[in-house]
Amino acid sequence: MSVASSFFDVGEEDLMRSGTNLTRVREYNQQVVLEAIRERGGASRVEIAKQTGLKEQTVSNIVKRLLKDGLVREGGKENSNGKKPRVRFEIKPDAAYAVGVQIDKDETTLVLVDLAGVVIARTSRPTLQEEGPAAVIEQVARSVGQMVEASGVVRADIMGLGVASPGPLDHAKGIVFETPHLPGWHEVHLKEALERETGYPVIVDRDGTAAAIGERWVGGARGVRSFAFVHVGAGGIGAGLFMNDQVYRGATSIAGAIGHTTLNPDGPECFCGNRGCVEIYCAPSAVTTTVKERLKGGEKSHLREMFEIGPDRVDFEAIRRAALAEDGLALAEIQRSAGMLGHAVVNMVNTLDVELVVLGGKALRGVEHIYRREVQGTLNNTMVASHWREVPIELSMAGDDAGAVGAASLTLHMAYAPRMASLSVVC
Amino acid sequence: MSVASSFFDVGEEDLMRSGTNLTRVREYNQQVVLEAIRERGGASRVEIAKQTGLKEQTVSNIVKRLLKDGLVREGGKENSNGKKPRVRFEIKPDAAYAVGVQIDKDETTLVLVDLAGVVIARTSRPTLQEEGPAAVIEQVARSVGQMVEASGVVRADIMGLGVASPGPLDHAKGIVFETPHLPGWHEVHLKEALERETGYPVIVDRDGTAAAIGERWVGGARGVRSFAFVHVGAGGIGAGLFMNDQVYRGATSIAGAIGHTTLNPDGPECFCGNRGCVEIYCAPSAVTTTVKERLKGGEKSHLREMFEIGPDRVDFEAIRRAALAEDGLALAEIQRSAGMLGHAVVNMVNTLDVELVVLGGKALRGVEHIYRREVQGTLNNTMVASHWREVPIELSMAGDDAGAVGAASLTLHMAYAPRMASLSVVC
Repeated sequence: MSVASSFFDVGEEDLMRSGTNLTRVREYNQQVVLEAIRERGGASRVEIAKQTGLKEQTVSNIVKRLLKDGLVREGGKENSNGKKPRVRFEIKPDAAYAVGVQIDKDETTLVLVDLAGVVIARTSRPTLQEEGPAAVIEQVARSVGQMVEASGVVRADIMGLGVASPGPLDHAKGIVFETPHLPGWHEVHLKEALERETGYPVIVDRDGTAAAIGERWVGGARGVRSFAFVHVGAGGIGAGLFMNDQVYRGATSIAGAIGHTTLNPDGPECFCGNRGCVEIYCAPSAVTTTVKERLKGGEKSHLREMFEIGPDRVDFEAIRRAALAEDGLALAEIQRSAGMLGHAVVNMVNTLDVELVVLGGKALRGVEHIYRREVQGTLNNTMVASHWREVPIELSMAGDDAGAVGAASLTLHMAYAPRMASLSVVC
Repeated sequence: MSVASSFFDVGEEDLMRSGTNLTRVREYNQQVVLEAIRERGGASRVEIAKQTGLKEQTVSNIVKRLLKDGLVREGGKENSNGKKPRVRFEIKPDAAYAVGVQIDKDETTLVLVDLAGVVIARTSRPTLQEEGPAAVIEQVARSVGQMVEASGVVRADIMGLGVASPGPLDHAKGIVFETPHLPGWHEVHLKEALERETGYPVIVDRDGTAAAIGERWVGGARGVRSFAFVHVGAGGIGAGLFMNDQVYRGATSIAGAIGHTTLNPDGPECFCGNRGCVEIYCAPSAVTTTVKERLKGGEKSHLREMFEIGPDRVDFEAIRRAALAEDGLALAEIQRSAGMLGHAVVNMVNTLDVELVVLGGKALRGVEHIYRREVQGTLNNTMVASHWREVPIELSMAGDDAGAVGAASLTLHMAYAPRMASLSVVC
């Protein structure tokens, strides 16, 4: 079946100040029921009614529609204390698929995800960033085609392509502005170009936001009303935000730009025009620079030999490996970076009062636990609410692929999640 | 008429993941229409339909109901290019009233506001903070009674009492936790006590949040989708947040605690457990401390004479006055405080990507323009979006009384603003 409908017409940007109408309410309730089934990994009519507050009769009608549309299927029956067994409904995983792409500085990752959020194909390529945006776009289009063909999934069942990119960007128009992490990218019309090249509908979002949507869709943030996904990419650091159950992108799609919040107004200058930014202290490139300086200064380290052969061999991956092997220098710098990230997270939590912080992104591969421990320690000692509660720090369940899985989820989320914006009438 | 209905039953905390139903949709649309009329200061059916996206027939039915309920009235007719003149509808200001109270460290302010947002009575008292919460509550209750009686407004027309208080507090339960700015306040059940003492329904909110609601209701933020009100009180600094057209309080009603975001992880210790907090650099008490230190060190200043008579005479009000009289020392310290507040605002704007920042609160009286200039300068030089847009900084239209007017608006807002939460079914 093909469910690639016209859902792209309704953007998150529709004014909530608009009125609503019956059709929208019906769609909204359908999405609420679908989400209840998905979040619980299957549910009976009674459970759905209880969770959503809808009448059982309403739930029955909606479930009938979802069955007819092929989005859910009957699962096993469950006995409830000798009463009549209840039918459980569950998501039909092969009802729809989506492709997710994460473009990062070094590597582009592609995944194919089913409606239940399971990754059924995955591939990655070195990003052709030095050849400019056109080459990257062409590479992405080709890789998507190859991955889909190899997967055996019918093209018509693929709802679309979600792309996670470093920001700043315009989510609605799918334009990536001057991003410092991809040289040569000036107002790249990523959505338009990829729609032309692939024939799929395309949604573009910041990597952090995509990761947050992914975590909400399939990860540890399912059902969490307000949370932040702190995304540490090879390029930069940014957060994706869910507030009051809705994605929050801000006025110009750059909400969550915590990489450029300042930790010291008198600190070193950042390319963004600010001083003492979080990225200056915490980004992978910052750690690499400091480690190299210390090696140059003659400090002892397992990285010394590599450094002597060629300083450029000491990249963030090498430092991460050395830290895992308990190398003092590497470990100290990773911990320092994580400690500073902790202060950034405290600032964000004091500002947003979220229930949960999820930590993820490719740059953390292997050293996630160090970052988690440091951030958690700082947060629960110094956040303003530390006297009466803890905010858990969890590692992304999508791991390295948080951005790519999130990008795929974008497409599914836009179509199937109960979004308040979808209640608004488009004038 | 009395409109003090049971609207308190539906809190902002209702899960948005719930389904919705027809009655709620009808109420929601009614609030959308009322808001359209209010925001425009009067509107015709056609204009309302255009703004809300509702059908003209639906608008007509809703307007009929609002007229019958006495919430709106017919205003003048307007000619539209020789066509049949259109009837304009406007808010009936005397349809409902609300009392707003702001409890600050030094002073408690009370206002009586009509449905159009006009302050029709105002009074203030020194806060009896040294006598503890019971005395403050008793004083508030007595003052409310006196103000209402003197105003001539019928008690039944008063919808309720909104109270703005320094946080942290639990908005839903109306409990103020340990607030450092009011000594002796430990888990004060402010809502319960004031409901008992006054007989009115009471809503409690953080001063910053109340001020934001006020600015959205009657001030310069009308119709602004996402904005932050930065509130500088005698006690502390906090922000109230509107995100995607909805009040955002966070998981524990402390969202916007920017006074305790850190501007220097190695800075001086703050009472909150963090270091280098914004309040340490920007709060009125911080300015007072530094000015006194510099006076003690022998610096020249118009404040010298006052200082010699008694150092405690040099309070923030005296410093503000000296700054306005171009006293070098006072001006330098006010500017330093404002400059640091600018960095805090940059961090907040980078995190929230709001369209507008409103600045207000009693502590800024007379020196608002200095704060505005400094914050605006820092913001538009260093925020991450500064390359492609400006975020305006506006002064609160409610001025000194932003918190009190906001507190009154709370009551009106809860009853009449289109809140997404009100679409949710309470299980």
